[in-house]
Amino acid sequence: MPITVAIAGATGYAGGELLRLLLGHPAYKAGHLIIGAITGNSSAGSRNAFPFAPELADRVIQETTPETLGGHDVVFLCLPHGHSAELAERLSPEALVIDCAADFRLKDAGQWERYYGSDHAGTWPYGLPELPGQREALRGARRIAVPGCFPTGATLALLPAVAAGLIGTEIALTSITGVSGAGKKATMALLGAETMGAVRPYNTAGKHRHTPEIVQNLQAFSNKPLSLSFTPVLAPMTRGILSTAVAPWRGSGDPREVYAEFYRDEPFVRLLPQVELPNTKNVQGTNMCHLAVELNEDAGTLLVTGAIDNLTKGTAGGAVQCMNLALGWEETDGLPTAAVAP
Amino acid sequence: MPITVAIAGATGYAGGELLRLLLGHPAYKAGHLIIGAITGNSSAGSRNAFPFAPELADRVIQETTPETLGGHDVVFLCLPHGHSAELAERLSPEALVIDCAADFRLKDAGQWERYYGSDHAGTWPYGLPELPGQREALRGARRIAVPGCFPTGATLALLPAVAAGLIGTEIALTSITGVSGAGKKATMALLGAETMGAVRPYNTAGKHRHTPEIVQNLQAFSNKPLSLSFTPVLAPMTRGILSTAVAPWRGSGDPREVYAEFYRDEPFVRLLPQVELPNTKNVQGTNMCHLAVELNEDAGTLLVTGAIDNLTKGTAGGAVQCMNLALGWEETDGLPTAAVAP
Amino acid sequence: MPITVAIAGATGYAGGELLRLLLGHPAYKAGHLIIGAITGNSSAGSRNAFPFAPELADRVIQETTPETLGGHDVVFLCLPHGHSAELAERLSPEALVIDCAADFRLKDAGQWERYYGSDHAGTWPYGLPELPGQREALRGARRIAVPGCFPTGATLALLPAVAAGLIGTEIALTSITGVSGAGKKATMALLGAETMGAVRPYNTAGKHRHTPEIVQNLQAFSNKPLSLSFTPVLAPMTRGILSTAVAPWRGSGDPREVYAEFYRDEPFVRLLPQVELPNTKNVQGTNMCHLAVELNEDAGTLLVTGAIDNLTKGTAGGAVQCMNLALGWEETDGLPTAAVAP
Amino acid sequence: MPITVAIAGATGYAGGELLRLLLGHPAYKAGHLIIGAITGNSSAGSRNAFPFAPELADRVIQETTPETLGGHDVVFLCLPHGHSAELAERLSPEALVIDCAADFRLKDAGQWERYYGSDHAGTWPYGLPELPGQREALRGARRIAVPGCFPTGATLALLPAVAAGLIGTEIALTSITGVSGAGKKATMALLGAETMGAVRPYNTAGKHRHTPEIVQNLQAFSNKPLSLSFTPVLAPMTRGILSTAVAPWRGSGDPREVYAEFYRDEPFVRLLPQVELPNTKNVQGTNMCHLAVELNEDAGTLLVTGAIDNLTKGTAGGAVQCMNLALGWEETDGLPTAAVAP
Repeated sequence: MPITVAIAGATGYAGGELLRLLLGHPAYKAGHLIIGAITGNSSAGSRNAFPFAPELADRVIQETTPETLGGHDVVFLCLPHGHSAELAERLSPEALVIDCAADFRLKDAGQWERYYGSDHAGTWPYGLPELPGQREALRGARRIAVPGCFPTGATLALLPAVAAGLIGTEIALTSITGVSGAGKKATMALLGAETMGAVRPYNTAGKHRHTPEIVQNLQAFSNKPLSLSFTPVLAPMTRGILSTAVAPWRGSGDPREVYAEFYRDEPFVRLLPQVELPNTKNVQGTNMCHLAVELNEDAGTLLVTGAIDNLTKGTAGGAVQCMNLALGWEETDGLPTAAVAP
Repeated sequence: MPITVAIAGATGYAGGELLRLLLGHPAYKAGHLIIGAITGNSSAGSRNAFPFAPELADRVIQETTPETLGGHDVVFLCLPHGHSAELAERLSPEALVIDCAADFRLKDAGQWERYYGSDHAGTWPYGLPELPGQREALRGARRIAVPGCFPTGATLALLPAVAAGLIGTEIALTSITGVSGAGKKATMALLGAETMGAVRPYNTAGKHRHTPEIVQNLQAFSNKPLSLSFTPVLAPMTRGILSTAVAPWRGSGDPREVYAEFYRDEPFVRLLPQVELPNTKNVQGTNMCHLAVELNEDAGTLLVTGAIDNLTKGTAGGAVQCMNLALGWEETDGLPTAAVAP
Repeated sequence: MPITVAIAGATGYAGGELLRLLLGHPAYKAGHLIIGAITGNSSAGSRNAFPFAPELADRVIQETTPETLGGHDVVFLCLPHGHSAELAERLSPEALVIDCAADFRLKDAGQWERYYGSDHAGTWPYGLPELPGQREALRGARRIAVPGCFPTGATLALLPAVAAGLIGTEIALTSITGVSGAGKKATMALLGAETMGAVRPYNTAGKHRHTPEIVQNLQAFSNKPLSLSFTPVLAPMTRGILSTAVAPWRGSGDPREVYAEFYRDEPFVRLLPQVELPNTKNVQGTNMCHLAVELNEDAGTLLVTGAIDNLTKGTAGGAVQCMNLALGWEETDGLPTAAVAP
Repeated sequence: MPITVAIAGATGYAGGELLRLLLGHPAYKAGHLIIGAITGNSSAGSRNAFPFAPELADRVIQETTPETLGGHDVVFLCLPHGHSAELAERLSPEALVIDCAADFRLKDAGQWERYYGSDHAGTWPYGLPELPGQREALRGARRIAVPGCFPTGATLALLPAVAAGLIGTEIALTSITGVSGAGKKATMALLGAETMGAVRPYNTAGKHRHTPEIVQNLQAFSNKPLSLSFTPVLAPMTRGILSTAVAPWRGSGDPREVYAEFYRDEPFVRLLPQVELPNTKNVQGTNMCHLAVELNEDAGTLLVTGAIDNLTKGTAGGAVQCMNLALGWEETDGLPTAAVAP
């Protein structure tokens, strides 16, 4: 019996990327995975919602309801935060529900309330298999919270250093993102004429909602309270996040060895050769995270720079990786590693 | 016995795209296709030549010689024109040699000499399976000339109209290309600072070398001498070609029906629904050609607009499609149809 | 007594560019021109509406009413079409009213109704001083209709050929525009994620509203009915229009000489040296139109390619040029000719 | 007697921007400033070297020699570092020589040798008038070293905090630059196909040559040794630098007040209103530096973000500002403050 998959909120950028990945998944090609309901809200009833995917030309967008989503083996939720809990409750506990929104990522209800201004829905297994111990937690899970795009990039860049005590507690993180990271929302500030030729910070100085999620991920592996200064920056490209993280160097020896060991068996994390630096172009459309680790001996700091595709490893690719794990499939199935470059 | 594949001139953009496609090809994943020699010139001896493809991190670029290329079942030539003939002569006639350069595309030696200023090497089967009768010619072929990127887009856009006599003989074609079309050459005019924020024509008024190739493709299906005004334009994007073709309307009825019929069984040509227009973004990274066909009743002209990815359907994807046909594999194997969008 | 200038609808892209030009105008710097009311609608009451112009930081946006606009010597209307007539009627006939919208551009009420679906407001002197005889009509005018951006580029590219009978009647025009041409409207299709990396046609096959305006401009200088096939294309840059125009060659001799003579005294039209082609980058932020004129002898056609900045010569620069003429000032005052390049 | 100005190395991006600014300078327009020799190397003898500046269409590029540069009142050097000293020695001590290269910026010969690998040429008055006391040093100077683009942005962003003791000594600075910052060099890594759609760090972890210059500027106003972690990042735009600087907060009260007071009389530094953040688009083509100053109370850090145009305030605009000061002209003459946006 093939697995059936539904996607709620499929007309946004995460949903579109998820469809692209599923259409290329070996299980889909072999007929073992069937794309069932595809839902949207304002676009419900329309056809041709995915002009980039000829396979879906005749699909009609359905409304996002428990009824349309029910009866599927896997349900991906690609909705704005605040809708996942109510939907998930109405879905079978046997169904694998993978939430790409923020609702179930944070453990601390107070942080949720501070950053999102609403009641905390709860906490689901966190869909970052590269966290120590997490891969096991995801195998067989039926509810998974996919990490945010910035937290994915930042956690993969910083975790080995934090966990090995290589750095002090004051971390300065500037993460530069492509414009699809802001979602498919018709707002003036995201117009092409506003974003092309423009680099600008936003939600700075602790205001970005991904801040507590990054801290949560890192703090769990540190025995000292961390101080994170997180500066998100919008850059004129469609996809990609480049993280640049600086922290006081408290280690000894070669930090690259620590990173190499930490990620030795990870299929989607690549420590670059010593002279290379990450480039968002080199991960475009892939589930990879490329990392470079350098000591700044003048400044006495460690610099980690890392690149991911915000829509792939940062959202939809991470979600498919989680699906593969939860269903007991090969973790790497359907996840490109060679980038669409240039 | 697995098929072995060599790529000459692999460090350019066509070679890189070919590697991406081969790494995702089901034959590669199943172990039936092995990537053998990867050659370059200035980069021979180096590693890490493909930072976008972690699978190839340890590969050492070899020199482009008959010896390194010999002994493979398939050899892709991604060299500047002028090198293919000499290499191909030194390769076994049993080997499948697929040339991405211009050397063997033109039938008319005079046109070759006029546009390329050197002796004509000859003519190989032309690697555009969508030409009537051509698919059969490619099955089992051992030498194939992959079309140029502009000719691929222009031919697919215009051929049904020409072949059905829907248009007069004066064709105005403006084709807008991304900057990878110019190849990976370190020239001032192709710098990021020169090409971002800039749209400019080049090699206009009959000077572009793809002009005779487009005419050759179309003229073969017309009984009147065609007049083509071809205007190539460079646009600030990495990939993609948008063709806009205008010609006097000489048909009757609905030209969309002619196109729909012409391409009914083509896996990589999509006639868009009536209200939609092509967008290079929607074919990015795919082997698709999206077409829109419209009558301009005020002007009495037919307008065909079409989008391809110059590196995929326009070069490397077309080459893989030819390989699949020549080897008797499924024509669509390893060729994405859902785009990396946005 | 200094001249006072009001700008209605100043928060759009045309209004912003107008403010930039006025702030650099020698009359402003000398205190002879004062920027009075700056109006908007949704933004009325707000400050910091022009973050690119520190001079205006403390300005409060006023509502667009006859009262706020009244009492100024010059009023620029940068509103969506349909609002100009009612406002203009309420302004003094002595005031110079320069309309950047389409309302008063067309002479043929039927064309207006067909393309705009509303009653025709009338016709004002057309603000393209480069049209033969038009400069004189603009001197001292008190109502001026600024041309559309596409018509400005297309008319300057084609007029000498049409007027001198160098070409046949079937003109194919593909005009490639930056995204600011679509205005500052929060729509999905204009998002950065949709427009970066994308080239796509729109309003093709006679549907674009600038079509009858281009025909009107050219037809006035032709004794045969023209057939225009106009294909607008959106490209991933903020500013600029590149026009590529092809028509059957019916002349003799060197068309460049005709163009050189036609534009001999024009300060803002530059016929490029023979080997050069226009580039939108080279006119960015200027009031210039760069043109190249070429014969395609194989095809028997004339190719004219031309570049303007859609916001400067294409809108706000053209408007200032008209203001200068109407006020009896130096026509070139305050209008940059050296581009912000790269 | 008009002032005569020569520009050496005018065909690069700094030289081109200098020409644009000089052509718009009121002294040029009034005939008080004459653009004399324009020199280049590989392009010597050519015309049409400045397709963006019609005024210079007939200019012939001369060779860069003491003879061609001699006899001018002002000489701008826009050459790669290493050439300025020899040329300057051959020019009259009465001539105002403004060097846009690095040769005379650093005071510490050891740092010069470490970063540039050659003998130290010396130190000239540093052309950043916003440094306390520096404006006076530049009035009447005859040799001026224009700051680097990154140091201009970083110094303006950090100096008030350093000078007022608001921050601790560990500064993390990520500066994101447009591609023109790398100069007009035909290298593969700077091709449009490589830089569009790509964000990547380079010369990280202390390796960038602007590092000691930034430290020199700040250290002069600090009584504790500073530790600077500087991460330059290349972004897909032609112009602009966004600096994001994070340091431990050691002050009290509102840091915005310190900045407002520090820059109270500066014509080219703008402290943005409290809710706004800088955007490179809003300074494009201007001599402005836009700054935002924020406390991150969770992290206990100060965040300063700032935007400049690397070619204007970051190079050529700064150079003109210095010329104005040295010649006793109005400091702001010929320097735009309203940006070419969008």
